[in-house]
Amino acid sequence: MIYTDASQTKQGMSVLVEGNVIKSITDDDDVISAFINEHKAEQDFSQINGSGYLLMPGLVNTHTHSPMTVLRNIGSDLTLQQWLFGEIIPRECNLTPENVYYGSMAAQMEMMRSGTTCFCDMYEPFEMLTKATLDSGMRANICTAGLHNDWSTGEKRTYETFEQSAKLFKQYSSYDRLNIFFEMHSVYLYRQEWLSGIVENAKKFNTGIHMHLHETEKEISDFMELNNGIRPTEFLESIGAFDVKTVAAHCTHMNDSDIQILKKHDVNVAVNMTSNLKLGSGIPPLPKFLEAGINVTLGTDGCASNNNLNMFEEMHLAALLYKGLYKDPTLIKAQDVVNMATVSGAKALLSEPCGAIKEGYLADMILVDLSGIHLNPINDINALICYCMQGSDVDTVIINGNVIMKNKKFLSIDEEKIMSEVNSIILCK
Amino acid sequence: MIYTDASQTKQGMSVLVEGNVIKSITDDDDVISAFINEHKAEQDFSQINGSGYLLMPGLVNTHTHSPMTVLRNIGSDLTLQQWLFGEIIPRECNLTPENVYYGSMAAQMEMMRSGTTCFCDMYEPFEMLTKATLDSGMRANICTAGLHNDWSTGEKRTYETFEQSAKLFKQYSSYDRLNIFFEMHSVYLYRQEWLSGIVENAKKFNTGIHMHLHETEKEISDFMELNNGIRPTEFLESIGAFDVKTVAAHCTHMNDSDIQILKKHDVNVAVNMTSNLKLGSGIPPLPKFLEAGINVTLGTDGCASNNNLNMFEEMHLAALLYKGLYKDPTLIKAQDVVNMATVSGAKALLSEPCGAIKEGYLADMILVDLSGIHLNPINDINALICYCMQGSDVDTVIINGNVIMKNKKFLSIDEEKIMSEVNSIILCK
Repeated sequence: MIYTDASQTKQGMSVLVEGNVIKSITDDDDVISAFINEHKAEQDFSQINGSGYLLMPGLVNTHTHSPMTVLRNIGSDLTLQQWLFGEIIPRECNLTPENVYYGSMAAQMEMMRSGTTCFCDMYEPFEMLTKATLDSGMRANICTAGLHNDWSTGEKRTYETFEQSAKLFKQYSSYDRLNIFFEMHSVYLYRQEWLSGIVENAKKFNTGIHMHLHETEKEISDFMELNNGIRPTEFLESIGAFDVKTVAAHCTHMNDSDIQILKKHDVNVAVNMTSNLKLGSGIPPLPKFLEAGINVTLGTDGCASNNNLNMFEEMHLAALLYKGLYKDPTLIKAQDVVNMATVSGAKALLSEPCGAIKEGYLADMILVDLSGIHLNPINDINALICYCMQGSDVDTVIINGNVIMKNKKFLSIDEEKIMSEVNSIILCK
Repeated sequence: MIYTDASQTKQGMSVLVEGNVIKSITDDDDVISAFINEHKAEQDFSQINGSGYLLMPGLVNTHTHSPMTVLRNIGSDLTLQQWLFGEIIPRECNLTPENVYYGSMAAQMEMMRSGTTCFCDMYEPFEMLTKATLDSGMRANICTAGLHNDWSTGEKRTYETFEQSAKLFKQYSSYDRLNIFFEMHSVYLYRQEWLSGIVENAKKFNTGIHMHLHETEKEISDFMELNNGIRPTEFLESIGAFDVKTVAAHCTHMNDSDIQILKKHDVNVAVNMTSNLKLGSGIPPLPKFLEAGINVTLGTDGCASNNNLNMFEEMHLAALLYKGLYKDPTLIKAQDVVNMATVSGAKALLSEPCGAIKEGYLADMILVDLSGIHLNPINDINALICYCMQGSDVDTVIINGNVIMKNKKFLSIDEEKIMSEVNSIILCK
């Protein structure tokens, strides 16, 4: 069964993938035979029987900090200040580049296992994130020009220079599964002269910016106090930060004027439901975003503030929360939520068409086992994906036309090694 | 690894089960050998190696309508009126007793697969629920004296008489895994003279009542309009409904005076997070319940309003929602949520000690596979259970001392048959 880009299903069809792109979706036996004959001699040619499965687009996680998986469950149920400054940052300062690599690998395994094929990462060092992504087989949007620890001198938490950042961009932007953005962590962590420099760099290299935006009320009021009552979103608009492609994570507290700015510049919003709830940041105005026609996408945030990277849980929350909050069960339809987690996410992170089972789209797809008793009877495919499906139902993961996971087993990742490395990391404060 | 009743873990211990009760938790090799020698000749004697697993109490689902699994995903994202009267009830009227049996069996399979060992059911006909429960191996609290379809005459939706109900109680209350309550559906569905009759019956038979209470604002205002401004909770107190053991499902809209009444009579509250959100009923004041010292438990409600029966999702929601709503990440600790889903639930439904790995407690336990990449590193066991664990991590289910599921396979349920029966039910309006 195929989940089509019309949010419905088709049966009895074959999806033909050539290189990294969906070439055709057809039930024409002659076309299928001709395709097989043309390609069967290729070394990586394979056929997968999808009977009993749902073929759907891979999920897209538009905001995470993948290496934070090593900090899973640290400091849960504490205040934001106690959690961040008392538990997380003191441990992060002791991370080695190797820890970051294995943390990101573990995160990417968790994401793929639960159906995510593409993610948007923000962490350091950049080279460890890119290395992990090239090794794992995932597709990612990774940003450079952030904080970094100077591992060679032991100096903690310095900034990459624009030159370093530009060099990394040029070095990595041609890789097949990587899309490189510039990092603008936030208005509270970066100095203002830096923010403009990042915008210039993004324009110069014709790429985008990944930022945290209005995650907490404090971040907004602190900024306004220092900047004559100007809100961070207004300020960022004034320096041209939204003139390039932007992924704005959180957007938990946005007034009508902020929302108009986001819409005016086609800013992509990455809503992080679990993280915003868990850290007590608040509840993002998702129905207002949709009403304004903003491209709304879903992210998990890092593992230390979630404490998992399971996009099915984010879909579940996005579909449920506002119905109860506004006492209106018609708010946020299942189909809209599936779109947020697939095609809208891909639009935010990539320049090529992706996120739907459609001719000409990148071949990032998952096969979901429909035999679980919790998935029967189906009755409504969008409700099934949104309310019933579990990450553990994902059987096969195809990214960029390559089969990465089959029968729940990774074909070229040493699972045991990653697990053992991640569990051996002991992070003291 | 054993999750102890102190909400911590112990390693290297053995749990010895005699009959249906946990006899001992020990690392004394002599005690273990003596126990094995004493029991090894018994036909159902078995040893399970728990290495790499977490042994924890089975989850307790304190409110559901198990046969509604056949209505999964019907009428999602509609208004409550459209959903209930336009989609659900017209189909329910066409259910046969056989449909109800297979629906309940499928529900019980889904519950056990995701770690639930005991549930509180409300549906009809009573004999189909009890038959399914006796067949499945689960523990259940089932209530009689509800609505019923008179299948013999084709009459739809009549009521059981008190005599019928009392007869069923006497017939089934001595079964090992069944605990029989009386059903008081709600103040809006039952006539007032009936409510008092149900209280009398419960007192006479020294058992409890399972009811819906303050699920929606409309239910409260409608009742108040007809009853001189008296709230349903006040009225039920006045007729003695809380003088017996009570499981009150939903309690979505409770003011301070209602909460005082619940606490005064030790009413057990079954919070149904997903259902209340999904149907737009509202958000129950869970932090206030806990502050008042009320026994708070978790339920999934029926599958048509959830659309699954996965208690891990209910835990996840209960732990997250209030932190975001009140912008306080210290609200509703992971440990409290695990208690709600285990020992507090068991206390609400049963008269015997259950819901903890503790000597003298009923042997209702699950083994959870800890090898998933999403469960590593562990760092904090309560956070792990509450925020990371998935229903699909449950490997083995032990109920009443019997191994019901092992290596994710049911030992004596014909899974294929149940699945096929459930999928063959076509319910027209």
